[in-house]
Amino acid sequence: MVYAVGVMSGTSLDGIDVALVDISGKDEMTKVNLLEFSTLPFKETTLQKIREALSLEKSDVEKICSLNVELGELFAQAVLNVCKKAGINSEDVAFVGSHGQTLFHIPVERKPFVASTLQIGDPAVICERIKTTVVSNFRERDMAVGGQGAPIVPYSEYVLYQKKGVTRLLQNIGGIGNVTVLPKSGKLADMIAFDTGPGNVIMNELCVHFFNQEYDENGFYAAQGTVDQALLDELMAHPYIKKPYPKTTGREDFGKQFTASLLEKWTLTPQDFLATATMFTAKSIAFAIRPFIHGQTELIIGGGGSYNPTLLSMIKRELPEVSVLIQEEIGFSSEAKEAISMAVLANQTIQHSIGNVPSATGAKRAVPLGSITYY
Amino acid sequence: MVYAVGVMSGTSLDGIDVALVDISGKDEMTKVNLLEFSTLPFKETTLQKIREALSLEKSDVEKICSLNVELGELFAQAVLNVCKKAGINSEDVAFVGSHGQTLFHIPVERKPFVASTLQIGDPAVICERIKTTVVSNFRERDMAVGGQGAPIVPYSEYVLYQKKGVTRLLQNIGGIGNVTVLPKSGKLADMIAFDTGPGNVIMNELCVHFFNQEYDENGFYAAQGTVDQALLDELMAHPYIKKPYPKTTGREDFGKQFTASLLEKWTLTPQDFLATATMFTAKSIAFAIRPFIHGQTELIIGGGGSYNPTLLSMIKRELPEVSVLIQEEIGFSSEAKEAISMAVLANQTIQHSIGNVPSATGAKRAVPLGSITYY
Repeated sequence: MVYAVGVMSGTSLDGIDVALVDISGKDEMTKVNLLEFSTLPFKETTLQKIREALSLEKSDVEKICSLNVELGELFAQAVLNVCKKAGINSEDVAFVGSHGQTLFHIPVERKPFVASTLQIGDPAVICERIKTTVVSNFRERDMAVGGQGAPIVPYSEYVLYQKKGVTRLLQNIGGIGNVTVLPKSGKLADMIAFDTGPGNVIMNELCVHFFNQEYDENGFYAAQGTVDQALLDELMAHPYIKKPYPKTTGREDFGKQFTASLLEKWTLTPQDFLATATMFTAKSIAFAIRPFIHGQTELIIGGGGSYNPTLLSMIKRELPEVSVLIQEEIGFSSEAKEAISMAVLANQTIQHSIGNVPSATGAKRAVPLGSITYY
Repeated sequence: MVYAVGVMSGTSLDGIDVALVDISGKDEMTKVNLLEFSTLPFKETTLQKIREALSLEKSDVEKICSLNVELGELFAQAVLNVCKKAGINSEDVAFVGSHGQTLFHIPVERKPFVASTLQIGDPAVICERIKTTVVSNFRERDMAVGGQGAPIVPYSEYVLYQKKGVTRLLQNIGGIGNVTVLPKSGKLADMIAFDTGPGNVIMNELCVHFFNQEYDENGFYAAQGTVDQALLDELMAHPYIKKPYPKTTGREDFGKQFTASLLEKWTLTPQDFLATATMFTAKSIAFAIRPFIHGQTELIIGGGGSYNPTLLSMIKRELPEVSVLIQEEIGFSSEAKEAISMAVLANQTIQHSIGNVPSATGAKRAVPLGSITYY
């Protein structure tokens, strides 16, 4: 049993999520306990730099070169903070798994660009500041064996949530929805993971448009509206919904532009719009996961959408045969889960064990992920 | 004794230098033999992509993301080529040390940018294609302990060339001149390395200007001219010459613009200009290394300048007390040396041993360099 830290900095730019765990074993024998979790928010100046580095128009090689080191320093600071909060000496951390900040991701070749991914946050800097081993750049190796480099968390979900004899469906509802199917066989090779379609993205865009609010808190507006069947039918006819997995989607499919086109074409009350968009997320999830319901099945919902009771009750109505739980009811919070995953993946890498799930990423084979920077 | 490969792709963009060696031991007990060396030139389309990625105006995050993987594939191809040429199975290579293509280097903080360096050429791709361990990103760790990330070859020069009881001065003459001092004490801590000033850069610019030729082949033009003492005095008064080490310079100090200003101010025959520029390189080298001449001293010259007899004879005249040799006379060719260095550094990293030389880079301490991607 050693101390390890996982660091995740997502594309939502909410900040740096850091999980301090104790961990032992490897593969399906891995044991992990979350000891401390915290998020270090980005300062506005850093956010500005990241946004520029993400932008095709504003990014350049000098900004990326410098930001790589600047983020390395911040990730290190975030690790030091969590250790302090937990009252442990950072030098007692056996290793850090750092996802890095994704600047760009090209899941499949799109000429003239090859399939590739770019995460930054210099591991050498983290290594020196924490005085410990750092594992980084997890996604590149999956792509080197033909995978899409995403999703990256399924292996750790398998380790953390797999329960023999029970089918567990881990449904994350962030901007986009994605599901990981943990089969009752308990076999890694039978795992499946893909994006189910929109998560909160359309609801959020509607809330900004109608109410100048970031999101529909507690599903308040959706609960007051009525689902418009015609709009719902049109939404469910979106080609992504019936597309076979493995598949990934993003804000470019269901974001601002998509919502604007709905607002232009359809005339509904704000509440009815919200109710219908919420039902679209519920129905698209139900449609996506129905083929995987066999025998005892638990649907475990995480992400921002798990705090929306209107959405949850719609999902429950669509899937009466499964027990619907939220992430916190069976263990880690949604926000901690991804950071914990980075510690689990780093633990695998250090023991020369695999970390990707080919049935989820489309990779030709399972491989160890990441590069190791030894102190 | 295992097979290892070093891969170097320099800023001159000549191509990918690959050295296949057998190697054993570590630190000062390292034994290295060069088995095969070759250079894979870049295709014009690749050169174009690298030039864009290097450019502040044309680079962007998408180009860099994709090029990282594209160069990884090319580096892997270059390794496969050299193995084939040597008749060995690439899977028998124990590890590859890959320098990567430098896209940007900020040796010291220059606000708003922090000290940082960016090399690309995805190690995960090389790892998968060669089916072996890859060590990469050597410079970052030196910078994480306050070094300038350059020069990177002194540790390997120490391993390859150090000879107890003899002071060896390894003078490389590329565009810029740089020297590594291997003290007769044989102690790593006494090593010094720095840029001496211009190498061939001024001579080359003059040749392009006067003769539309890339360089003064065999020192042909310089040999026909007479050194202009007034111009030479002005050149030797350049502030870089007397600046104390550690110090680095580049084309920005002695390149096109500097040469243009000389051409504007001075009226000399082309031959006299060449003779004076050649003498400037010789004198600046002599001035830089004179303080390190103690007892038996060998000056070992490598790089393009070592093939210019006019320059060599000027250096010999300036330093009658040292024996001047060229790189090939004592072992590896200049071009192979940097690639061999990458194999030496990777060997150190894999054995958790140091790879930087603090007295050369300015780092606070000696550390292992690079990240390891295990197959």
